[in-house]
Amino acid sequence: MATGADPITRLIHELGKLPGIGERTATRLAFHVMRAPESLAQGLAQALLDVKAKVRLCSSCMNLTEDDPCALCADARRDPGLLCVVATPADLLAVDRGGAFRGRYHVLHGVLSPLEGIGPDDLRIGDLVRRVGEAAPHGSGPPIREVILALSPNVEGEATALYLARLLRPLGPPGLKVTRIASGVPIGGELEYVDQVTIARALEARREV
Amino acid sequence: MATGADPITRLIHELGKLPGIGERTATRLAFHVMRAPESLAQGLAQALLDVKAKVRLCSSCMNLTEDDPCALCADARRDPGLLCVVATPADLLAVDRGGAFRGRYHVLHGVLSPLEGIGPDDLRIGDLVRRVGEAAPHGSGPPIREVILALSPNVEGEATALYLARLLRPLGPPGLKVTRIASGVPIGGELEYVDQVTIARALEARREV
Repeated sequence: MATGADPITRLIHELGKLPGIGERTATRLAFHVMRAPESLAQGLAQALLDVKAKVRLCSSCMNLTEDDPCALCADARRDPGLLCVVATPADLLAVDRGGAFRGRYHVLHGVLSPLEGIGPDDLRIGDLVRRVGEAAPHGSGPPIREVILALSPNVEGEATALYLARLLRPLGPPGLKVTRIASGVPIGGELEYVDQVTIARALEARREV
Repeated sequence: MATGADPITRLIHELGKLPGIGERTATRLAFHVMRAPESLAQGLAQALLDVKAKVRLCSSCMNLTEDDPCALCADARRDPGLLCVVATPADLLAVDRGGAFRGRYHVLHGVLSPLEGIGPDDLRIGDLVRRVGEAAPHGSGPPIREVILALSPNVEGEATALYLARLLRPLGPPGLKVTRIASGVPIGGELEYVDQVTIARALEARREV
């Protein structure tokens, strides 16, 4: 794409770089932007620039944030004894949206994936090890009773969870629990449409009612 | 949304203003932008601003353009005797993409829609009337042999086509043809999945092979 291309073609091209946005959708969005008031284009442009200029990693939980420590780490009402480990900031948002979890987080920024060449050093595992190692009563940090591994139940997520469980258990304070979120048939899901592996997992993890 | 919201939330909110982009998609796109190199956000932001700052209407065909007259109107190889009327710049792009049409265009910027309060004065119909009225041999403009109404085959499109045909025929040079693009089963379409109205139209407009 020559930078000399006309502005409409260029906007379509730039929108088309976003994931899941093909040429047809990009064209539709571009024409919408042109019909819409100027404030829409300006608001979006400013938000795009701000997000790159102002957002960095929280030095404690490694989540994306404008302030350090982030609002989640600074919130004294959150239980520092519960540490939920997630792969990405988007996963953190998904877990926190429901409001069911009131502890702290740690963002790995990925999962182990030998096929893609992603090893422990490419993730924020060192920072996690430090946090758990420094937990009271033996360390200087806040006490941690339980590390909850909230990683997606796929091959990479399972491997990462196993790796982390083995790594963290001996490091933490005595009695530290390392747990994994449950997998099974989603609430509201139709058994008929659930894949076989999930069914097998749900059967295996069955509980008495 | 308070303008004091954090940059990520604000970007998600701004992306969510685009048509067809819900909160989940906006979240996914926002996190992609944050992971991607800064050039992605900057390129998209600049394209958004440019499109509003630099794009205006071609004084001849009313298409969106950076230069006036636009590249299509300025292209001397395009037949000025064929005038294709489209509802929107996006429709123009769709018609022109195939390269099957080598004439000129006129963009109405909408179709007649009494229900939405859109009448002839809200569209670029006056400019179309002027172009056709000024056509040679009687007028001073370039000759026009045929006006092709390339409007979508729905209620508003049909009504607009009928209205324009009645309006333009007496205005143009003698022998001016006003035609309508064909509708029927799309090429490559499966008869099984085509709606009944289209089937009926395709039967009605059947041609000897």
